[in-house]
Amino acid sequence: MGKRILVVGAGGLIGSEAASALEASGHEIIRASRSTGEQVDLTDPTSIEALFARIGDVDAVVATTGVVPFKPLDELTLEDFRDGIADKALGQIGLVTIATPHVRDGGSFTLTSGVLSREPIETGAVASAANGALDSFAIAAAAGLPRGIRINTVSPSVIAEATGYHSSFPGFPQTPVSEAARAIVRSVDGVETGQVFSV
Amino acid sequence: MGKRILVVGAGGLIGSEAASALEASGHEIIRASRSTGEQVDLTDPTSIEALFARIGDVDAVVATTGVVPFKPLDELTLEDFRDGIADKALGQIGLVTIATPHVRDGGSFTLTSGVLSREPIETGAVASAANGALDSFAIAAAAGLPRGIRINTVSPSVIAEATGYHSSFPGFPQTPVSEAARAIVRSVDGVETGQVFSV
Repeated sequence: MGKRILVVGAGGLIGSEAASALEASGHEIIRASRSTGEQVDLTDPTSIEALFARIGDVDAVVATTGVVPFKPLDELTLEDFRDGIADKALGQIGLVTIATPHVRDGGSFTLTSGVLSREPIETGAVASAANGALDSFAIAAAAGLPRGIRINTVSPSVIAEATGYHSSFPGFPQTPVSEAARAIVRSVDGVETGQVFSV
Repeated sequence: MGKRILVVGAGGLIGSEAASALEASGHEIIRASRSTGEQVDLTDPTSIEALFARIGDVDAVVATTGVVPFKPLDELTLEDFRDGIADKALGQIGLVTIATPHVRDGGSFTLTSGVLSREPIETGAVASAANGALDSFAIAAAAGLPRGIRINTVSPSVIAEATGYHSSFPGFPQTPVSEAARAIVRSVDGVETGQVFSV
Protein backbone atom coordinates (compact mmCIF):
# COMPACT_ATOMS: atom_id res chain seq x y z
CA MET A 1 0.00 0.00 0.00
CA GLY A 2 1.31 3.42 -0.86
CA LYS A 3 2.62 5.54 1.97
CA ARG A 4 2.23 9.26 2.51
CA ILE A 5 5.79 10.61 2.68
CA LEU A 6 7.16 14.05 3.50
CA VAL A 7 10.51 14.77 1.83
CA VAL A 8 12.19 17.87 3.29
CA GLY A 9 14.99 19.09 1.08
CA ALA A 10 13.14 18.02 -2.06
CA GLY A 11 14.63 20.95 -3.97
CA GLY A 12 18.13 19.51 -3.54
CA LEU A 13 20.05 16.89 -5.44
CA ILE A 14 19.50 13.96 -3.04
CA GLY A 15 16.02 15.04 -1.96
CA SER A 16 14.63 15.38 -5.46
CA GLU A 17 16.06 12.01 -6.50
CA ALA A 18 14.70 10.37 -3.34
CA ALA A 19 11.27 11.90 -3.90
CA SER A 20 11.21 10.56 -7.46
CA ALA A 21 12.39 7.10 -6.40
CA LEU A 22 9.78 6.88 -3.65
CA GLU A 23 7.08 8.13 -6.04
CA ALA A 24 8.10 5.45 -8.55
CA SER A 25 7.54 2.91 -5.76
CA GLY A 26 3.88 3.99 -5.59
CA HIS A 27 4.03 6.37 -2.65
CA GLU A 28 2.39 9.79 -2.30
CA ILE A 29 5.13 12.40 -1.90
CA ILE A 30 4.86 15.80 -0.26
CA ARG A 31 7.84 17.83 -1.39
CA ALA A 32 9.08 20.48 1.02
CA SER A 33 12.12 22.73 1.21
CA ARG A 34 13.22 26.17 2.31
CA SER A 35 12.19 27.75 -0.95
CA THR A 36 10.11 25.43 -3.17
CA GLY A 37 7.06 23.19 -2.73
CA GLU A 38 5.71 23.21 0.82
CA GLN A 39 7.98 25.79 2.44
CA VAL A 40 9.58 24.99 5.77
CA ASP A 41 12.60 26.19 7.73
CA LEU A 42 13.81 23.34 9.95
CA THR A 43 15.68 25.76 12.22
CA ASP A 44 12.33 27.29 13.18
CA PRO A 45 10.02 25.03 15.24
CA THR A 46 6.97 27.14 14.45
CA SER A 47 7.66 26.67 10.73
CA ILE A 48 7.68 22.87 11.22
CA GLU A 49 4.46 23.00 13.25
CA ALA A 50 2.84 25.14 10.54
CA LEU A 51 3.89 22.64 7.88
CA PHE A 52 2.16 19.75 9.66
CA ALA A 53 -0.90 21.90 10.34
CA ARG A 54 -1.14 22.28 6.54
CA ILE A 55 -0.31 18.74 5.42
CA GLY A 56 -1.60 16.55 8.27
CA ASP A 57 -0.17 13.18 9.29
CA VAL A 58 2.29 11.13 7.26
CA ASP A 59 3.75 7.64 7.25
CA ALA A 60 7.33 8.69 6.74
CA VAL A 61 9.53 11.75 6.98
CA VAL A 62 12.74 12.06 4.95
CA ALA A 63 15.19 14.92 5.54
CA THR A 64 18.04 15.63 3.13
CA THR A 65 18.79 19.08 4.48
CA GLY A 66 21.59 21.07 6.02
CA VAL A 67 24.02 23.78 5.09
CA VAL A 68 27.46 23.81 6.69
CA PRO A 69 30.50 26.00 6.04
CA PHE A 70 33.48 24.28 4.35
CA LYS A 71 36.76 25.91 5.38
CA PRO A 72 40.19 24.82 6.63
CA LEU A 73 40.23 24.21 10.38
CA ASP A 74 42.27 27.32 11.16
CA GLU A 75 39.67 29.52 9.44
CA LEU A 76 36.68 27.97 11.24
CA THR A 77 35.30 29.97 14.15
CA LEU A 78 33.10 28.75 16.98
CA GLU A 79 30.32 30.63 15.18
CA ASP A 80 30.85 28.46 12.08
CA PHE A 81 30.46 25.32 14.19
CA ARG A 82 27.41 26.75 15.95
CA ASP A 83 25.76 27.72 12.66
CA GLY A 84 26.53 24.49 10.82
CA ILE A 85 25.43 22.26 13.70
CA ALA A 86 22.29 24.38 14.16
CA ASP A 87 21.37 24.07 10.48
CA LYS A 88 22.23 20.46 9.65
CA ALA A 89 22.15 18.57 12.98
CA LEU A 90 19.66 20.53 15.07
CA GLY A 91 17.50 21.15 11.98
CA GLN A 92 16.99 17.44 11.39
CA ILE A 93 16.85 16.60 15.13
CA GLY A 94 14.24 19.32 15.64
CA LEU A 95 12.22 17.88 12.78
CA VAL A 96 12.14 14.52 14.58
CA THR A 97 11.17 15.97 17.96
CA ILE A 98 8.39 18.07 16.46
CA ALA A 99 7.14 15.71 13.74
CA THR A 100 6.87 12.53 15.82
CA PRO A 101 3.23 13.11 16.88
CA HIS A 102 2.37 13.57 13.20
CA VAL A 103 3.93 10.28 12.07
CA ARG A 104 1.55 7.33 11.98
CA ASP A 105 2.10 4.04 13.87
CA GLY A 106 4.88 2.00 12.30
CA GLY A 107 6.16 4.99 10.36
CA SER A 108 9.73 6.15 9.92
CA PHE A 109 12.24 8.95 9.85
CA THR A 110 15.19 8.97 7.46
CA LEU A 111 17.89 11.57 8.09
CA THR A 112 20.91 12.45 5.95
CA SER A 113 24.39 12.72 7.43
CA GLY A 114 27.54 11.93 5.41
CA VAL A 115 30.91 10.23 5.23
CA LEU A 116 32.70 13.06 7.05
CA SER A 117 31.50 11.73 10.40
CA ARG A 118 34.07 8.94 9.95
CA GLU A 119 36.63 10.19 7.42
CA PRO A 120 38.03 13.72 7.24
CA ILE A 121 38.68 16.19 4.46
CA GLU A 122 40.65 19.42 4.82
CA THR A 123 37.64 21.72 4.94
CA GLY A 124 35.09 19.45 6.59
CA ALA A 125 35.37 19.78 10.38
CA VAL A 126 31.95 21.39 10.79
CA ALA A 127 30.29 18.79 8.57
CA SER A 128 32.10 16.06 10.53
CA ALA A 129 30.70 17.32 13.83
CA ALA A 130 27.18 17.78 12.44
CA ASN A 131 27.15 14.36 10.77
CA GLY A 132 28.50 12.67 13.90
CA ALA A 133 25.74 14.26 15.96
CA LEU A 134 23.11 12.97 13.49
CA ASP A 135 24.40 9.40 13.28
CA SER A 136 24.58 9.12 17.07
CA PHE A 137 21.23 10.83 17.60
CA ALA A 138 19.52 8.34 15.30
CA ILE A 139 20.97 5.41 17.23
CA ALA A 140 19.52 6.88 20.43
CA ALA A 141 16.20 7.94 18.93
CA ALA A 142 15.62 4.47 17.46
CA ALA A 143 15.48 3.18 21.03
CA GLY A 144 13.04 5.84 22.17
CA LEU A 145 10.55 6.55 19.40
CA PRO A 146 6.98 5.43 20.18
CA ARG A 147 4.46 3.29 18.29
CA GLY A 148 6.94 1.32 16.23
CA ILE A 149 8.33 4.39 14.49
CA ARG A 150 11.78 3.68 13.02
CA ILE A 151 14.71 6.00 12.29
CA ASN A 152 17.91 5.66 10.24
CA THR A 153 20.52 7.93 8.76
CA VAL A 154 21.76 7.69 5.18
CA SER A 155 25.43 8.65 5.07
CA PRO A 156 26.69 9.18 1.51
CA SER A 157 30.19 9.90 0.27
CA VAL A 158 30.56 12.90 -2.01
CA ILE A 159 27.79 12.74 -4.62
CA ALA A 160 28.96 11.95 -8.16
CA GLU A 161 26.66 14.58 -9.66
CA ALA A 162 27.79 17.28 -7.16
CA THR A 163 30.86 18.10 -9.18
CA GLY A 164 31.51 21.34 -7.30
CA TYR A 165 32.53 19.31 -4.25
CA HIS A 166 34.80 16.81 -5.99
CA SER A 167 38.05 18.73 -5.53
CA SER A 168 37.42 18.86 -1.77
CA PHE A 169 37.14 15.05 -1.65
CA PRO A 170 40.29 13.96 -3.54
CA GLY A 171 40.20 10.26 -4.32
CA PHE A 172 37.06 9.65 -2.26
CA PRO A 173 34.59 7.18 -3.76
CA GLN A 174 31.79 9.11 -5.48
CA THR A 175 28.22 8.04 -4.75
CA PRO A 176 25.74 8.33 -7.63
CA VAL A 177 22.74 10.25 -6.33
CA SER A 178 20.62 7.25 -7.36
CA GLU A 179 22.47 5.15 -4.77
CA ALA A 180 21.77 7.68 -2.02
CA ALA A 181 18.10 7.63 -3.06
CA ARG A 182 18.13 3.82 -3.05
CA ALA A 183 19.35 3.84 0.58
CA ILE A 184 16.54 6.22 1.49
CA VAL A 185 14.02 3.82 -0.08
CA ARG A 186 15.56 1.00 1.98
CA SER A 187 15.12 3.04 5.14
CA VAL A 188 11.52 4.02 4.34
CA ASP A 189 10.22 0.71 2.98
CA GLY A 190 12.42 -1.70 4.96
CA VAL A 191 12.24 -2.81 8.57
CA GLU A 192 15.57 -1.60 9.94
CA THR A 193 16.03 1.02 12.65
CA GLY A 194 18.95 2.72 14.38
CA GLN A 195 21.15 2.08 11.35
CA VAL A 196 23.65 4.24 9.51
CA PHE A 197 23.42 3.35 5.81
CA SER A 198 26.82 4.25 4.40
CA VAL A 199 26.69 4.63 0.62
CA MET B 1 60.48 16.27 30.47
CA GLY B 2 57.43 17.49 32.29
CA LYS B 3 54.71 19.13 30.26
CA ARG B 4 52.56 22.11 31.16
CA ILE B 5 48.99 20.84 30.98
CA LEU B 6 45.65 22.62 31.29
CA VAL B 7 42.87 20.38 32.62
CA VAL B 8 39.42 21.96 32.17
CA GLY B 9 36.80 20.23 34.27
CA ALA B 10 39.32 19.54 37.03
CA GLY B 11 36.58 19.92 39.64
CA GLY B 12 34.77 16.88 38.25
CA LEU B 13 35.23 13.18 38.81
CA ILE B 14 37.20 12.39 35.62
CA GLY B 15 39.00 15.72 35.47
CA SER B 16 40.32 15.58 39.03
CA GLU B 17 41.50 12.00 38.58
CA ALA B 18 43.16 12.86 35.26
CA ALA B 19 44.88 15.88 36.79
CA SER B 20 46.25 13.72 39.60
CA ALA B 21 47.39 10.98 37.24
CA LEU B 22 49.15 13.49 34.96
CA GLU B 23 50.73 15.19 37.98
CA ALA B 24 51.99 11.81 39.20
CA SER B 25 53.67 11.43 35.79
CA GLY B 26 55.73 14.55 36.52
CA HIS B 27 53.73 17.15 34.64
CA GLU B 28 52.76 20.64 35.76
CA ILE B 29 48.97 20.85 35.95
CA ILE B 30 46.80 23.93 35.70
CA ARG B 31 43.39 23.00 37.06
CA ALA B 32 40.44 24.91 35.62
CA SER B 33 36.68 24.59 35.83
CA ARG B 34 33.51 26.65 35.89
CA SER B 35 33.73 27.23 39.63
CA THR B 36 37.08 26.17 41.12
CA GLY B 37 40.78 26.71 40.33
CA GLU B 38 41.29 28.84 37.22
CA GLN B 39 37.73 29.75 36.36
CA VAL B 40 36.56 29.38 32.78
CA ASP B 41 33.24 29.00 30.99
CA LEU B 42 33.81 27.07 27.75
CA THR B 43 30.55 28.37 26.27
CA ASP B 44 32.00 31.90 26.38
CA PRO B 45 34.93 32.53 23.99
CA THR B 46 36.02 35.63 25.89
CA SER B 47 36.29 33.55 29.06
CA ILE B 48 38.61 31.10 27.25
CA GLU B 49 40.72 33.96 25.85
CA ALA B 50 40.96 35.48 29.33
CA LEU B 51 42.11 32.15 30.76
CA PHE B 52 45.00 31.88 28.31
CA ALA B 53 45.88 35.55 28.87
CA ARG B 54 46.34 34.60 32.54
CA ILE B 55 48.10 31.24 32.20
CA GLY B 56 50.09 31.58 28.98
CA ASP B 57 50.98 28.76 26.63
CA VAL B 58 50.69 25.05 27.43
CA ASP B 59 51.79 21.73 25.97
CA ALA B 60 48.47 19.99 26.35
CA VAL B 61 44.82 20.77 26.93
CA VAL B 62 42.46 18.23 28.49
CA ALA B 63 38.70 18.85 28.63
CA THR B 64 36.41 16.66 30.72
CA THR B 65 33.47 19.04 30.61
CA GLY B 66 29.87 19.17 29.52
CA VAL B 67 26.42 19.17 31.04
CA VAL B 68 23.57 17.58 29.09
CA PRO B 69 19.95 16.92 30.08
CA PHE B 70 19.01 13.26 30.62
CA LYS B 71 15.33 12.65 29.81
CA PRO B 72 13.26 10.18 27.80
CA LEU B 73 13.07 11.08 24.12
CA ASP B 74 9.45 12.19 24.25
CA GLU B 75 10.28 14.74 26.97
CA LEU B 76 13.28 16.21 25.14
CA THR B 77 12.69 19.49 23.36
CA LEU B 78 14.73 21.07 20.61
CA GLU B 79 15.91 23.49 23.32
CA ASP B 80 17.30 20.55 25.32
CA PHE B 81 19.32 19.40 22.30
CA ARG B 82 20.49 22.93 21.59
CA ASP B 83 21.58 23.48 25.21
CA GLY B 84 23.28 20.10 25.65
CA ILE B 85 25.15 20.31 22.35
CA ALA B 86 26.14 23.92 23.11
CA ASP B 87 27.54 22.98 26.51
CA LYS B 88 29.27 19.66 25.87
CA ALA B 89 30.08 19.60 22.13
CA LEU B 90 30.45 23.28 21.23
CA GLY B 91 32.12 23.96 24.60
CA GLN B 92 34.94 21.52 23.88
CA ILE B 93 35.08 22.39 20.15
CA GLY B 94 35.27 26.10 21.01
CA LEU B 95 38.11 25.36 23.40
CA VAL B 96 40.06 23.76 20.55
CA THR B 97 39.41 26.57 18.08
CA ILE B 98 40.41 29.26 20.59
CA ALA B 99 43.22 27.43 22.42
CA THR B 100 45.16 26.18 19.39
CA PRO B 101 47.42 29.28 19.11
CA HIS B 102 48.27 28.80 22.81
CA VAL B 103 49.33 25.15 22.45
CA ARG B 104 53.02 24.59 21.79
CA ASP B 105 54.43 22.69 18.81
CA GLY B 106 53.83 18.96 19.13
CA GLY B 107 51.22 19.49 21.84
CA SER B 108 47.82 17.87 22.16
CA PHE B 109 44.15 18.18 22.91
CA THR B 110 42.21 15.45 24.72
CA LEU B 111 38.43 15.74 24.70
CA THR B 112 35.86 13.68 26.59
CA SER B 113 32.84 12.19 24.85
CA GLY B 114 31.20 8.93 26.01
CA VAL B 115 29.75 5.56 25.12
CA LEU B 116 26.35 7.03 24.20
CA SER B 117 27.65 8.07 20.79
CA ARG B 118 27.54 4.38 19.87
CA GLU B 119 25.12 2.69 22.31
CA PRO B 120 21.83 4.16 23.53
CA ILE B 121 20.15 4.47 26.91
CA GLU B 122 16.55 5.55 27.46
CA THR B 123 17.38 9.08 28.59
CA GLY B 124 20.53 9.73 26.60
CA ALA B 125 19.60 11.12 23.17
CA VAL B 126 21.13 14.56 23.84
CA ALA B 127 24.34 13.02 25.19
CA SER B 128 24.44 10.71 22.15
CA ALA B 129 24.25 13.65 19.74
CA ALA B 130 26.84 15.70 21.67
CA ASN B 131 29.25 12.76 21.98
CA GLY B 132 28.86 11.87 18.31
CA ALA B 133 29.69 15.44 17.35
CA LEU B 134 32.83 15.36 19.52
CA ASP B 135 34.14 12.01 18.24
CA SER B 136 33.67 13.07 14.62
CA PHE B 137 35.07 16.55 15.21
CA ALA B 138 38.26 15.10 16.68
CA ILE B 139 38.76 12.87 13.64
CA ALA B 140 38.49 15.93 11.41
CA ALA B 141 40.54 18.23 13.63
CA ALA B 142 43.38 15.70 13.82
CA ALA B 143 43.84 16.17 10.08
CA GLY B 144 43.84 19.96 10.31
CA LEU B 145 45.67 21.02 13.47
CA PRO B 146 48.99 22.80 12.80
CA ARG B 147 52.53 22.29 14.15
CA GLY B 148 52.17 18.60 14.99
CA ILE B 149 49.40 19.20 17.52
CA ARG B 150 47.42 15.99 18.14
CA ILE B 151 43.81 15.47 19.27
CA ASN B 152 41.87 12.47 20.59
CA THR B 153 38.64 11.83 22.44
CA VAL B 154 38.32 9.61 25.47
CA SER B 155 34.95 7.88 25.44
CA PRO B 156 34.12 6.19 28.74
CA SER B 157 31.18 4.02 29.65
CA VAL B 158 29.29 5.02 32.81
CA ILE B 159 31.86 5.74 35.53
CA ALA B 160 31.94 3.18 38.36
CA GLU B 161 32.22 5.90 40.99
CA ALA B 162 29.33 7.94 39.50
CA THR B 163 26.71 5.84 41.26
CA GLY B 164 23.92 8.32 40.59
CA TYR B 165 24.03 7.38 36.89
CA HIS B 166 24.13 3.60 37.30
CA SER B 167 20.37 3.02 37.14
CA SER B 168 20.27 4.86 33.79
CA PHE B 169 22.88 2.46 32.35
CA PRO B 170 21.43 -0.95 33.28
CA GLY B 171 23.94 -3.72 32.68
CA PHE B 172 26.43 -1.42 30.99
CA PRO B 173 30.09 -2.08 31.81
CA GLN B 174 31.22 0.40 34.47
CA THR B 175 34.52 2.19 33.90
CA PRO B 176 36.61 2.93 37.00
CA VAL B 177 37.50 6.61 36.89
CA SER B 178 41.15 5.54 37.06
CA GLU B 179 40.74 3.85 33.65
CA ALA B 180 39.30 7.02 32.13
CA ALA B 181 42.27 8.93 33.56
CA ARG B 182 44.65 6.32 32.18
CA ALA B 183 43.23 6.84 28.67
CA ILE B 184 43.74 10.58 29.07
CA VAL B 185 47.40 9.98 30.00
CA ARG B 186 47.73 7.81 26.87
CA SER B 187 46.35 10.61 24.73
CA VAL B 188 48.57 13.28 26.33
CA ASP B 189 51.83 11.35 26.57
CA GLY B 190 51.43 9.01 23.57
CA VAL B 191 51.78 9.66 19.87
CA GLU B 192 48.29 8.87 18.58
CA THR B 193 45.93 11.35 16.96
CA GLY B 194 42.38 11.27 15.59
CA GLN B 195 41.53 8.35 17.85
CA VAL B 196 38.50 7.58 19.98
CA PHE B 197 39.73 5.80 23.11
CA SER B 198 36.75 3.75 24.27
CA VAL B 199 37.13 2.72 27.91
